[in-house]
Amino acid sequence: MLPVPEKYALAVGKGEGGKKLNAFDAALIDAGIGNMNLLRVSSVLPPGCVFEDGIDLPLGSLLPVAYGSITSDVHGETISAAIGVGVPENNEDSGMIMEYSGFCEADEAAQKVEEMVRDAFEMRQVKLREVKVKAVDHVVEKCGSVIAACPLFYPRR
Amino acid sequence: MLPVPEKYALAVGKGEGGKKLNAFDAALIDAGIGNMNLLRVSSVLPPGCVFEDGIDLPLGSLLPVAYGSITSDVHGETISAAIGVGVPENNEDSGMIMEYSGFCEADEAAQKVEEMVRDAFEMRQVKLREVKVKAVDHVVEKCGSVIAACPLFYPRR
Amino acid sequence: MLPVPEKYALAVGKGEGGKKLNAFDAALIDAGIGNMNLLRVSSVLPPGCVFEDGIDLPLGSLLPVAYGSITSDVHGETISAAIGVGVPENNEDSGMIMEYSGFCEADEAAQKVEEMVRDAFEMRQVKLREVKVKAVDHVVEKCGSVIAACPLFYPRR
Repeated sequence: MLPVPEKYALAVGKGEGGKKLNAFDAALIDAGIGNMNLLRVSSVLPPGCVFEDGIDLPLGSLLPVAYGSITSDVHGETISAAIGVGVPENNEDSGMIMEYSGFCEADEAAQKVEEMVRDAFEMRQVKLREVKVKAVDHVVEKCGSVIAACPLFYPRR
Repeated sequence: MLPVPEKYALAVGKGEGGKKLNAFDAALIDAGIGNMNLLRVSSVLPPGCVFEDGIDLPLGSLLPVAYGSITSDVHGETISAAIGVGVPENNEDSGMIMEYSGFCEADEAAQKVEEMVRDAFEMRQVKLREVKVKAVDHVVEKCGSVIAACPLFYPRR
Repeated sequence: MLPVPEKYALAVGKGEGGKKLNAFDAALIDAGIGNMNLLRVSSVLPPGCVFEDGIDLPLGSLLPVAYGSITSDVHGETISAAIGVGVPENNEDSGMIMEYSGFCEADEAAQKVEEMVRDAFEMRQVKLREVKVKAVDHVVEKCGSVIAACPLFYPRR
């Protein structure tokens, strides 16, 4: 089996670059996950998964991550991304991770993602203890990108 | 090495939600994979991989999965997804997994995906024993989603 | 933890198919990675990762891979993909992998991806030893696809 992640963090970042992938890369660096191999997942918080304030992993690690991201090369455009994690009341339930990205400010993105988390819990009829949200926005200069991410990882042994 | 998957299943689902990601989430729940961390793969059936009728994994597991999915917020639109697995005649060959999604009924999606599997075997000049197909369709109410998936997993130890 | 990849390769391919996914599949076969389960990553070369001229893995292996790919069904269109790996001067730094795909010839794709690698190193203020690039182009007949990939893997044990 692939090991079930035991830790999670929330990270947001923004940046500019010469090409869209470089702008995305700049946002990853700003979010502190620019030197990891992101494996995008869709997006469940394993039961008992513990929040950490940052990630400390070997460079180049395969890092499962749920994220929302948007990149634009339209000068003056406001772009935003938000990540929301719903922590269940009961430690034996799984939680839910929702991501959002769009053309709005961070507050609106945060609000939308929180609503998405609440909907996901309602759909599962699981009781919600807490929603953690992080959001970011950016006004595009030449080519800009934002990311809001929930890395899922393991204790370093 | 990452372990080679030893089991596979076929799962389809459909659902409605307030936002597109919630509709997708509803489809995942309906398919029985809503509490896993989906790692999307492109999409080979390992030699000797064994079919199981369902999946029994810890909540939040990293689950490699090939899937087709489509989400729409156009009321009245028919959406469908199909997944097809080609099982090779010879157990030492790998098989192929193909996915399809589009605006048609399940029957048509199933037919397309089966054809794609047959083409993939022909391209590899591998002899086909059997094609397993599952398909689903849905008429969108407000915001609907369908998924047809082939999870790849491991025996629980 | 998921194991940090220790080896990498560069692979390009092109192909035609009846449907877009079959064309992509043909390109994967041509690139020599058609019988693996590709796990797309975003895209760092772990420190000390060793270049290999090809990959020798069990069929159906989960293969982390950074790639650029494009598929078109417009007859006569030129499509291309390029992959670039920046190897750092210092073995303890991580390197960067960049991918590109678009409607141009292989040379232009190669040039773009090399520039992206150089930008990524500059952004990180990491000294670059070497950029390895592979690119491919294809003039679409009916439905064609190209891929340029950097598989990340492990020694076979």
